[in-house]
Amino acid sequence: MAADDVRSTLILSASDVKQLLCMGEVIKAVEGAFRACGEGMVEMTPKSYVKAGDGDFRAMPACMADAASVKWVNSHPMNRTRGLPTVMAVLIYSDPRTGFPLAVMDATEITAFRTGATAAVASKYLARKGCRTLGLVGAGKQAHSQLLAHTEVFDLELVRVYDVRAEAVQRFAASFPHANVQGCSLEDTVSSDIVCTLTPAREPIVRREWVFSGTHINAVGADAKGKQELDPAILNDAIVVVDDLHQAAGGGEINVAVAKGLFTLEQVHGTLAQIVTGQKEGRVAEDAITVFDSTGIALEDLATAKLVYEKACQAGRGLAVELVSLS
Amino acid sequence: MAADDVRSTLILSASDVKQLLCMGEVIKAVEGAFRACGEGMVEMTPKSYVKAGDGDFRAMPACMADAASVKWVNSHPMNRTRGLPTVMAVLIYSDPRTGFPLAVMDATEITAFRTGATAAVASKYLARKGCRTLGLVGAGKQAHSQLLAHTEVFDLELVRVYDVRAEAVQRFAASFPHANVQGCSLEDTVSSDIVCTLTPAREPIVRREWVFSGTHINAVGADAKGKQELDPAILNDAIVVVDDLHQAAGGGEINVAVAKGLFTLEQVHGTLAQIVTGQKEGRVAEDAITVFDSTGIALEDLATAKLVYEKACQAGRGLAVELVSLS
Repeated sequence: MAADDVRSTLILSASDVKQLLCMGEVIKAVEGAFRACGEGMVEMTPKSYVKAGDGDFRAMPACMADAASVKWVNSHPMNRTRGLPTVMAVLIYSDPRTGFPLAVMDATEITAFRTGATAAVASKYLARKGCRTLGLVGAGKQAHSQLLAHTEVFDLELVRVYDVRAEAVQRFAASFPHANVQGCSLEDTVSSDIVCTLTPAREPIVRREWVFSGTHINAVGADAKGKQELDPAILNDAIVVVDDLHQAAGGGEINVAVAKGLFTLEQVHGTLAQIVTGQKEGRVAEDAITVFDSTGIALEDLATAKLVYEKACQAGRGLAVELVSLS
Repeated sequence: MAADDVRSTLILSASDVKQLLCMGEVIKAVEGAFRACGEGMVEMTPKSYVKAGDGDFRAMPACMADAASVKWVNSHPMNRTRGLPTVMAVLIYSDPRTGFPLAVMDATEITAFRTGATAAVASKYLARKGCRTLGLVGAGKQAHSQLLAHTEVFDLELVRVYDVRAEAVQRFAASFPHANVQGCSLEDTVSSDIVCTLTPAREPIVRREWVFSGTHINAVGADAKGKQELDPAILNDAIVVVDDLHQAAGGGEINVAVAKGLFTLEQVHGTLAQIVTGQKEGRVAEDAITVFDSTGIALEDLATAKLVYEKACQAGRGLAVELVSLS
């Protein structure tokens, strides 16, 4: 589609986006974006945070050869008491050749999908071949995306799930009737081939002695200063890969250990973009522990939004409005 | 309006926004936002730039007590050859208490209006009382906003306009049939009480010897590294006020002079927020030359968007869509 001929902006609601998202496609798109990033083809700045009452907003801009976007996403933990989602996101999707805004879309579901997809890409490159068990620490919304995403990449025989809320585990299991989902203790959950930590913990909850050799961990929960889920001894014994070094140091899984001097940035093996492009080796040994520190970066949203936009155009979904004037 | 009860997001097109914008109100809103900023009540980060083909995008987030927004604006100079505007902007307007996106609006006209309004606020505090002549260097779109805005604050008897394109001056004059607009030489235009420089110049075009004592200059054109409109000798002889020191140093009128060592950041008198709140003195003497270095900051867009949103709600304008899901 020649964007020079496009005169209207497509409004894509949460229900439009949900219909268009397909995890297998999102994984391919996100992997492609990390490859482009490794090849120096992505322009991106770290998240800009602005405080807002008892929460905050983050602006996340990115640009590739054929797509550009900014995501505006909030985090208001007290929204639970207000009957509102904690996180809501809107994304403006633009043509980088002209700057024209091609679409405005809900990006709440995009955020959930791309986070799962990115972890699955990390697992593809860092976990052992033939992984059969997945451990999910935390049974909230992100657990769904992680299971969906890892199912696309691995033949999973068993999914172990731990949550402090027993009912959350039951709800999660019920929503995947065709998967072998078992509620487990935290220690048993961590004994899986691939472990995804998905909690808002501010103290280490995963102990070093629970982690077997050869395990791959996607540390997803920590996304702000002071948050951590893993015993720093795990980081010291592991090959640690980050999505973005600046963001990881500031608010990813490694941030507390770095601040306390228990882990240094020099110990970071590389970025996921370097792994995907082969500039850095992925898994180096069968018995290595690997950790992917996921903070979430703008290129993941951009790649997913591009997919959604192109599918929406094909399917004729969304509401076309003349948002900006061309005269 | 209790945002907790709002379930839909208002889509406001360029024509909606144009209908709702009133320069007198925008000036008051922008002045109020600079005051809030001076009182430490505005959260804001500098513009995040991402390159995009032969242009770029800027993400501009800001948050005040009762309003938050991000503006996504491009600059693609080659768009002239494509039959598209050089600059297009979209803004997401959110409730800072919950993060809910209240509106998505065209912000192209908002950008033009708030730039004019901000310069008028600067002129109000920095220009001499009773200014009667306005000089506009450049007769493009921003000249319209500057004239509209300064007409709200001053009783103008004469508006001098210079542009390298004679036809641009004629078009400009024709669009203000009730104002006393005269096409002039650059030197004569600069001999006005208040001068607004509005060009994309990369070399000084306004000479020191043309600037009379007591003149106030709004230097608006320079908005990126390497751009400048004023002889650095003017900066050295003037009281220089900036909207944002970081942005001004990086890409405002002072950026080239600072980079060449012809002007230092210590010479900057203060920010417009400090002037508006009285933390710094405005005009100190009748014969002083004052310069306001305008780069455009996110709070100007936020204040204007808040006005537009509230007026749209009152007037029942815009298209309400269920953009994000609250379940």
